Amino acid sequence: MKYGRKVLTGIPKTVHGGQAWKMKGIEDYSHNLNPFGPPEFLHEIVSTAMEDVGHYPDDNCTELKATLSKIFSLKEENIAIGSGSSEIIRNFPNAFIESGEKAVINRPSFAEYSQQCRLVGAKIEYNELSEEGDFRIDPKGLSSALKKDVKALYICNPNNPTGRIEHRSKILEIVKECQDKGILVFLDETLLELVPNHEEISCAGFVKKYDNLVIAGSLTKSFAIPGIRIGYGMASQHLIEEMDKVRMTWNVGQIEQNVARILMSEHMDYVHKAAAVMAKESKTMHSQLKALGFPIGNVTDSFFYFCSLKEIGIKCAEFQKLMLKEKIMVRDCSSFGERFDSFVRFSVKDRERNEMFVKAVERTMERLG
Amino acid sequence: MKYGRKVLTGIPKTVHGGQAWKMKGIEDYSHNLNPFGPPEFLHEIVSTAMEDVGHYPDDNCTELKATLSKIFSLKEENIAIGSGSSEIIRNFPNAFIESGEKAVINRPSFAEYSQQCRLVGAKIEYNELSEEGDFRIDPKGLSSALKKDVKALYICNPNNPTGRIEHRSKILEIVKECQDKGILVFLDETLLELVPNHEEISCAGFVKKYDNLVIAGSLTKSFAIPGIRIGYGMASQHLIEEMDKVRMTWNVGQIEQNVARILMSEHMDYVHKAAAVMAKESKTMHSQLKALGFPIGNVTDSFFYFCSLKEIGIKCAEFQKLMLKEKIMVRDCSSFGERFDSFVRFSVKDRERNEMFVKAVERTMERLG
Repeated sequence: MKYGRKVLTGIPKTVHGGQAWKMKGIEDYSHNLNPFGPPEFLHEIVSTAMEDVGHYPDDNCTELKATLSKIFSLKEENIAIGSGSSEIIRNFPNAFIESGEKAVINRPSFAEYSQQCRLVGAKIEYNELSEEGDFRIDPKGLSSALKKDVKALYICNPNNPTGRIEHRSKILEIVKECQDKGILVFLDETLLELVPNHEEISCAGFVKKYDNLVIAGSLTKSFAIPGIRIGYGMASQHLIEEMDKVRMTWNVGQIEQNVARILMSEHMDYVHKAAAVMAKESKTMHSQLKALGFPIGNVTDSFFYFCSLKEIGIKCAEFQKLMLKEKIMVRDCSSFGERFDSFVRFSVKDRERNEMFVKAVERTMERLG
Repeated sequence: MKYGRKVLTGIPKTVHGGQAWKMKGIEDYSHNLNPFGPPEFLHEIVSTAMEDVGHYPDDNCTELKATLSKIFSLKEENIAIGSGSSEIIRNFPNAFIESGEKAVINRPSFAEYSQQCRLVGAKIEYNELSEEGDFRIDPKGLSSALKKDVKALYICNPNNPTGRIEHRSKILEIVKECQDKGILVFLDETLLELVPNHEEISCAGFVKKYDNLVIAGSLTKSFAIPGIRIGYGMASQHLIEEMDKVRMTWNVGQIEQNVARILMSEHMDYVHKAAAVMAKESKTMHSQLKALGFPIGNVTDSFFYFCSLKEIGIKCAEFQKLMLKEKIMVRDCSSFGERFDSFVRFSVKDRERNEMFVKAVERTMERLG
């Protein structure tokens, strides 16, 4: 007998980068994490946190919420804690989208938005970001997609995989339009902290003003700790309360709560340093790749590149294979949709590794002739 | 504007025991964990596992599944890994129960079954366990509740909060009846490993035979590590595949995966030792409490007691307060339903602490006159 819910029929798993750890001796340019890896002092934090594993985790994450509320000048009632920002992404449609309601999602963007919408039976309408428009959001085109039957809009800033950053004023205009139309906005800022001056771009403070805005944040990228599952959401009290209803009890372990609290209150300099290095190195890397004739496009807004390989006549799957021979993993972007099967995504790291990367690209291009 | 899904209106949070860690100097008898606490060697395991936090967790939990499949003589395809057994409890209705479909849940039992069913819009029918029937499942009564429109039945073994254990043969008869009727069975065995001879009670091996059976297991209770979120599910390949579709990507952190793998493959003696101690001490504790005139009932099947305080004319809320004066926390069972507001649940620990517990009960009863 088949027991599964109808809506699950044919739902595929999402595909993600950051898989090179499974292979030895490969430098992973396929993820977009802090290139300096997890901070050394993390060991001590975890070791101290071990004292707390014998009791159930604080289901309300009280101390962590207090810390985040200070950082973002919000009330604790405006904050939700998740097992990774993945759980915020999961809880959002679970709390708000009824089966059959519509979500508008930019394409290309992070695969989990669509996946979690599908699981609640939402209808998905894609707002196609165009190569000609440099993959930026066209407010007019988007506006016409935001009809009255839309329940939620997803924006990722910087957008994964394109690396494009939209300015705060542009985002807030969209949020306001959505508020007027009764549409929720899910704004994913999990990649933002690795960008210099991210405070000027983040809309975190604006969840007090817009009762339709949910923002997701994470420590995964900024502290390079994807193995420790912790993330957070910010929104009006009403939205947080609804998301809290669908949240799993004890969703965040006690080690995770302590780690997040200490890293975010005491160690943001670790993140800012990485952001500064990547912003500088991005330019160097860009000019070196451009000099090789690699179709690098403009300097990225963020700390990772999204480039079409059409000019050099190669699909990304083949390019990825060739780069692996050079001991480097890049992200094949075909999982973002068929029209992206020539697109590659790769991150920026420090000078030394970026030069290895550039040399690997050079040899690969020579090999291609 | 209100944005929440209709089904969330008025959904309360679940209430759980194990909260005494928030108070200093209180011995917590309100949870049902291994009384010896987290094993000391856990520090070393976690410290080693820290090497892996810089990459995304293995989303398939391959090594941990391989370990569990050996332990339970199952295929890896029969195993799901969750962020606590809570996530198995959450994924089950998400994978199988459509809004409006019916679930039968024994009462009293663990609160999360109902909660997760409510969140998907399931109708819940309670199978009331009676005090006269010693809170055991009456197969005839249950059978008549298992009509064709029922999608799933929940069984907790040992049952939380009653402590009753049903024998394997009885469980399997129910599972078979359900299979014939096209009803899924969710069997929660998270408390079972702390019972001697649990292998003879567990139905783990039978997920190969019954394609309607999902079993949940956990390390929380057996290793006393509720702060580390890890649990597992066992079922036929088809059921596991469906639950995997609704599972959150990277649902289990890398520290958790390593901890579970090493504890379960190398350290089950730690659990068995605790089970043996509690089985022995349970009898001593029982006779001491009985001698005081405390309404202890029969020796428990498991390692925790569920007693009505009606005989001594007191609600549990008041008893809990008086016991807190004695520096001991017990579980007020009124959250399991109004008819249980005179019921207390408390665990068994080692001789020394149990004697403190018995003395505390003695003084409390004297105070009550």
